[in-house]
Amino acid sequence: MLHTECSLESNKIMSRIWNFSAGPSALPLSVLEKAQSELLDWNGIGASVMEISHRGAEFMALAESIEADFRQLLEIPDDYHVLFTTGGATLAQALIPLNIASFGQAADYVVTGHWSNTAIKQAKPYVDVREVASSASDGFRSVPSSDNWKCSNNAAYLHYTANETIHGVAIRQVPQLPENAAPLVVDFSSSIASEPIDVSQYGIIYAGAQKNLGPVGISVVIIRKDLLERDGQTRADILDYRSQAAKDSMLNTPPTFNWYLLGLTVRWMLEQGGTAEFKKRNELKAATLYETIDVSGGFYRNEVAASARSIMNVPFFLATPELDALFVSESRKQNMLGLKGHKAVGGIRASIYNAMPLEGVEVLTDFMREFQRTHG
Amino acid sequence: MLHTECSLESNKIMSRIWNFSAGPSALPLSVLEKAQSELLDWNGIGASVMEISHRGAEFMALAESIEADFRQLLEIPDDYHVLFTTGGATLAQALIPLNIASFGQAADYVVTGHWSNTAIKQAKPYVDVREVASSASDGFRSVPSSDNWKCSNNAAYLHYTANETIHGVAIRQVPQLPENAAPLVVDFSSSIASEPIDVSQYGIIYAGAQKNLGPVGISVVIIRKDLLERDGQTRADILDYRSQAAKDSMLNTPPTFNWYLLGLTVRWMLEQGGTAEFKKRNELKAATLYETIDVSGGFYRNEVAASARSIMNVPFFLATPELDALFVSESRKQNMLGLKGHKAVGGIRASIYNAMPLEGVEVLTDFMREFQRTHG
Repeated sequence: MLHTECSLESNKIMSRIWNFSAGPSALPLSVLEKAQSELLDWNGIGASVMEISHRGAEFMALAESIEADFRQLLEIPDDYHVLFTTGGATLAQALIPLNIASFGQAADYVVTGHWSNTAIKQAKPYVDVREVASSASDGFRSVPSSDNWKCSNNAAYLHYTANETIHGVAIRQVPQLPENAAPLVVDFSSSIASEPIDVSQYGIIYAGAQKNLGPVGISVVIIRKDLLERDGQTRADILDYRSQAAKDSMLNTPPTFNWYLLGLTVRWMLEQGGTAEFKKRNELKAATLYETIDVSGGFYRNEVAASARSIMNVPFFLATPELDALFVSESRKQNMLGLKGHKAVGGIRASIYNAMPLEGVEVLTDFMREFQRTHG
Repeated sequence: MLHTECSLESNKIMSRIWNFSAGPSALPLSVLEKAQSELLDWNGIGASVMEISHRGAEFMALAESIEADFRQLLEIPDDYHVLFTTGGATLAQALIPLNIASFGQAADYVVTGHWSNTAIKQAKPYVDVREVASSASDGFRSVPSSDNWKCSNNAAYLHYTANETIHGVAIRQVPQLPENAAPLVVDFSSSIASEPIDVSQYGIIYAGAQKNLGPVGISVVIIRKDLLERDGQTRADILDYRSQAAKDSMLNTPPTFNWYLLGLTVRWMLEQGGTAEFKKRNELKAATLYETIDVSGGFYRNEVAASARSIMNVPFFLATPELDALFVSESRKQNMLGLKGHKAVGGIRASIYNAMPLEGVEVLTDFMREFQRTHG
């Protein structure tokens, strides 16, 4: 690796940690190394990519190539716009009703965990939120069957969360819904590009980038063009997705460096074999981890229904909060970061996004077995 | 410099360009070098600062120290909140009326150039915009005297643009206004930290960071706390400055790497001597450049009234657009970047923010004299 040959701090051998953070999360080492190597001089122009005009020919060409790569990665049809935006998924959760629903119109929400509720909270000032299904009653350990979603007539859209980052619950298949169902609006923040999806099944796919797409500080909104033609509600131009689309996500100065890092990460995913390859890797990583939990005889517990288990975020619990805390502190000593569960649920959480290799998961499962041996 | 001792591409001597870009713009070399040196391993944790949780102890401590440094740099009183936000100044131009004005309430705007008009555009859906003064009639070459600002009774606020990045027009002194004037809301995007200001004279100061504060992708909103108590208008939680303040700008995942770069830049400014030192440097740089223009006998033209000239952005024109274009292309060959004027006005523009040393301005003025000698 570059940094061992010629480190900027050459008297120190750098040791990269196994990073299980939920987001911001690990980036591929090669992406960071490339960003590092050209941080002072990008493309031979004598300046960092973060120091140049977004409207100059160099950055415009970069932005165009990133969009092309991203479209290739997710096989995005031509009748979809791709917006690169700021504000994260949470801002999108407010802007989507503002842009594609009229004030007070019904909007359907499926609730499968924390982030489903966040989406509802942001939408409530603008639409008549209808919870059409919820797994709250079983502590978000399952996904309500789409047969039982009580969808509204004339809803502006139907929203769900493809992967609940905190609860470790996923909706990986497109739900079977009637022909006349409202367009699907789906938060893919923590599972985008983890496996192939059929974009044409969705009205809007949105995601913060800081999990599978690399850096924090930029988000993507993939929106079917006919939805952009809806009037939406009174809003400032900067909050208007039509204006953003018309200006190719440069209505105002975009976060160029974050965009560049996203581009490096997307290119890395393509070079690795794309979403089909990552599906294989992610399923193997997840199976390795869930198996370690399931064969532990209850020492480790993950109670999510097998069909609803996330392949990105694996929460689990030990017998007591004290044992959870000890597990986290001991894992940190063994070169693993970010395993503490979200404060909303406690316990442990291993986030194993695309940038996490199988080797990292095996380091974790080896540690889990050893921890069980010494504390079981 | 670090990169000549041990470059990541050691067979290449890197040449940094003189970067006059208007924003995104040049960062201090030492800031980029520090970011580069710790891009793979920040603070010895074995991960990049962009790969770790914003809610972890390490990043929380960083964010706290950045705010302390920023408060020190601008001498921000305790009765002001500092928000670190996404979306740029343009988003702030929409959110400020949403947060501190009631729907349809009068809001006063002084118009001194392109960005004043942008602010009005974003506000119009939410407030009754009143243009209380404008220098449009003289092509934005001056600032209307505050004696003649026709302020409304009961306006929610009075907005102006401290430095018009495109037109090179600045309001550097706090206007003399009646005691009962509405709170000043001021866009300081392209002049924040360029010289000392008395924050207590303002209701809100906002700025995109990508000029004097370093990186693109993060903005600051300095808001007097009593203004946060205003009801404002119906809005999603993510658009609510009260919620942002209550969560210390971590209502959702913030752009952590941009925040970190802003922190490095703020620390660099403190180490250089703070805003008083930059005022001296900036006035000298600007005087050097304006003098070169003014003694050129009309070969170079800047027609902004002397009292309104920006010390950050210096637009000027040659005799024809063809000569402007030749100037830009020749300057690029001489290792200078970003001198093309904004498309709204054409000509040349030299942006000479805090990160631009006097040496860079002298390289430019030497080039200007030589270009005049050969093309005059």
